[in-house]
Amino acid sequence: MEETTRLAGLIQERIDDTLAAHRGELQPLGADIAPLLDEAADYLAGGKRLRARFAVLGYRAVRPLDVFGEPSGELGVVLDAACALELFHAAALIHDDVIDRSDTRRGRPSAHRHFASLHDDAGWRGSAEHFGLAGAILLGDLLQSWADELMQRACDRAAAAAGRAAREHFNRMRSEVAAGQYLDVFEEQQPEFAPEQQQLERSTLVLVYKSAKYSVEAPLLIGAALAGADEEQEGALSEFGLPVGVAFQLRDDLLGVFGDSDLTGKPASDDLLEGKRTVLVTLSRTSLPDTQRRLFDEMLGDPTLEAEQIEMMQRTIRDSGAVRRVEDMIARNIDRAEASLDFAPLDVGAKERLIDLARRSTRRVA
Amino acid sequence: MEETTRLAGLIQERIDDTLAAHRGELQPLGADIAPLLDEAADYLAGGKRLRARFAVLGYRAVRPLDVFGEPSGELGVVLDAACALELFHAAALIHDDVIDRSDTRRGRPSAHRHFASLHDDAGWRGSAEHFGLAGAILLGDLLQSWADELMQRACDRAAAAAGRAAREHFNRMRSEVAAGQYLDVFEEQQPEFAPEQQQLERSTLVLVYKSAKYSVEAPLLIGAALAGADEEQEGALSEFGLPVGVAFQLRDDLLGVFGDSDLTGKPASDDLLEGKRTVLVTLSRTSLPDTQRRLFDEMLGDPTLEAEQIEMMQRTIRDSGAVRRVEDMIARNIDRAEASLDFAPLDVGAKERLIDLARRSTRRVA
Repeated sequence: MEETTRLAGLIQERIDDTLAAHRGELQPLGADIAPLLDEAADYLAGGKRLRARFAVLGYRAVRPLDVFGEPSGELGVVLDAACALELFHAAALIHDDVIDRSDTRRGRPSAHRHFASLHDDAGWRGSAEHFGLAGAILLGDLLQSWADELMQRACDRAAAAAGRAAREHFNRMRSEVAAGQYLDVFEEQQPEFAPEQQQLERSTLVLVYKSAKYSVEAPLLIGAALAGADEEQEGALSEFGLPVGVAFQLRDDLLGVFGDSDLTGKPASDDLLEGKRTVLVTLSRTSLPDTQRRLFDEMLGDPTLEAEQIEMMQRTIRDSGAVRRVEDMIARNIDRAEASLDFAPLDVGAKERLIDLARRSTRRVA
Repeated sequence: MEETTRLAGLIQERIDDTLAAHRGELQPLGADIAPLLDEAADYLAGGKRLRARFAVLGYRAVRPLDVFGEPSGELGVVLDAACALELFHAAALIHDDVIDRSDTRRGRPSAHRHFASLHDDAGWRGSAEHFGLAGAILLGDLLQSWADELMQRACDRAAAAAGRAAREHFNRMRSEVAAGQYLDVFEEQQPEFAPEQQQLERSTLVLVYKSAKYSVEAPLLIGAALAGADEEQEGALSEFGLPVGVAFQLRDDLLGVFGDSDLTGKPASDDLLEGKRTVLVTLSRTSLPDTQRRLFDEMLGDPTLEAEQIEMMQRTIRDSGAVRRVEDMIARNIDRAEASLDFAPLDVGAKERLIDLARRSTRRVA
C-alpha cells in the first residue's frame, strides 16, 4: 500500500473514532442532537487533509516515523495532532462560510445551508436561515473544542518539552487565523481601495495570516515540535512553509475567481461576489484606466452580479496581466521554498515529500 | 480588605494581563484589529464572575488557599482556571447573543451590535449587520481559544493527575454546553409544544446542560480537580452544584420574562420574544384553557410583540401560578444543595461560602 493511502486511511479512522467517542459522551442529551454529530461526520469525510499531511511531514522531517506501524505510541501522537488540525480547520471553514455567505463547500451545501435545509424540510417554525446560522455557529464551536482536546492529547503524550512547544504553535496559529479573518472582512468593508503599494501590503498581510501561516507553516511546526525539533529545524521549516503557504493562497485566489468548481467544491467567482481584496484583484485593477477601474470597483462585492458581469470581470482580470503575475509569484515562491531545503538540517526523504506536497497543493488545476 | 474584593481584583488583573499579552502577540497584524481586542476588554470588564468564584470555591473546598498571598504558584493556577472560565463564558455569550438575536448584554450593546455600530459609524460599504455578525463570530472564536490556552496553563502547572482531571471536566463542559444550546434552539423551532410531562422533561434537559452543569457544577469540579479532589469530594460538589445550577437557571428564566433589566443588563421579556420553552413557560401554559393557550403559543416567539402583548403574557404567566411553582422549585433546590453539604468531606469554611454564593446567585431580585 502506498504511504499516502495508508495515512489517509489512518486519519479518517481517527476522525471517525473521535466523533464516535463524542457521540457516546453526549448520549444523555438525547436523539435530537444527532444532526450536529451527523453533520460533523459528513463535513469531515471530505477535504484534502492538507494540514494533516503537512503536520505528519513536519514530524518526519525531524524524526523517522513508521506509518505502517501500529497507530498508537508515536504514530498515535502524530495522528492526534494531524486530526486536531483537520477538526480545527472544519470549525474555521464552517464559521468562515457564514461570514463569507458561501453556500457550498467541498461540493456540498455549507453547514449553515445544511441546517437551514433541515428546518425547511421539517417545516419547523421560525426562520430556517436563522436556524442554519445557529447550527453552524454551534457546530463550529463544538469542533473547535474537540480540536483542542485532541491536540492536547497529542501534547500530553509527547515528551514534555515537545508537547509544550507544539501547543505554543497551535495557540499562536489559532489567534493569528481568527485575527487574520477579521482583517480580511475588514478590508472588504472599506469604501475605497488604498493606493496600490499600500493595498498590496494590506492584502499580503491578510494572505499571510489568514492562510499562508495557518495552512502550511503552522502544521509543519506543530508536527516538528512534537518530534522534538530544535530551533534550527523549526527555522528551516518556516523558511520552507511560509512561501509554500503564500503560493497556496495565491492559487486559491485564482481559483476563487476562475475556479474550477468541480475541483474546489466551491463555485468560481465567489471571491468577486464577496468583494475579497485579494492580491490578484489588487494587481488587476491598478493597471486599468480610471473609468474602467471605477466600474470594476463598483461591481466587486455586489452579491447580485449576473453571469455576464462576472465574465466581464474575469476577462478584465485576465487581460490586466495580473493572472500571469500571480502565476509568476506562485512559481517564484515554490522555487524559493525548494531552494530553502537544500542545506536544511532535515531528513532527506521528508524533504522530497515536502517538495512533492508543496507542488501538488499549489499547481495549476485547469 | 474583604476576600471577595481581593479575588475580584485579582481576576480582573489576570484577565487584563491575558488580553494585553494577546494584544502584544498580534501586533504584527497592525492597528486595524484593535476593535477586536478593545471589545474583548470591554466585554470582560463586566459580569458577575460567578463561574470564576465557583471555581475558586471548588478549590478551597478541597485544599486551603491563601487568597491574600502572591498571585503566583498555587493561587496563580486557580486564577488561570477561573479566568479561563470567564473568557470561555464571554465567548459563549457572544455567540449566544447572535443566536438569540439579543441586542444587549451586561447593560451594553451585545458584541454583534457593537461591531455593527462600528460599521455604521464609519460609513463603510456592505451590510453593517453582517459585519456585526462576522465580528461577533470571530471574537467568540478568539476568546474560546484564549480560554483554552489559559485553562491548559493552569492544568500544566498543577500536579499531573490533577491537571488531567481538571482538563477532562473542562472538555466535557464545553461539549455539553454547546450541545445544550443546540437543543435549546431546536426546541424553539418545534411547531407544537409536547404534552406537559414530556415538554417539562425536554425543557429540564436543556436547563441542565445549557446552564446548570455549565454555570455551577463544572466550575466547582474544575477547581476541585486542580486541588487534587478525590472521587468522594467531587461527588459531593456535584450533589451540591447541580441543584444550585438548576435554581440559578430557574431564577434566570424568571428574569428572562419579568426583568429587571437594571440588574440583568438585558431587557425583560427577551425570552418571550425569542420563544424560549423554559420550565417557567411550560408550566404556565398547561394550566390555561384551550383558547387562551393557543393564543399564548402563537404570541410566544413572535419578535414583533408589542408592549401590551408582552404585559398580557407576563400577567398570564403570573396568574397561572407558574411563578410561585418556580419560586418553590428554586427554594427546594437550594435547600437540597445546602443539606447535601452536611456530611460532605469538604472544608467547613468553604461550605459556608458555597452556601452564601448559592443563595446570592439565585435570590429574588425585585
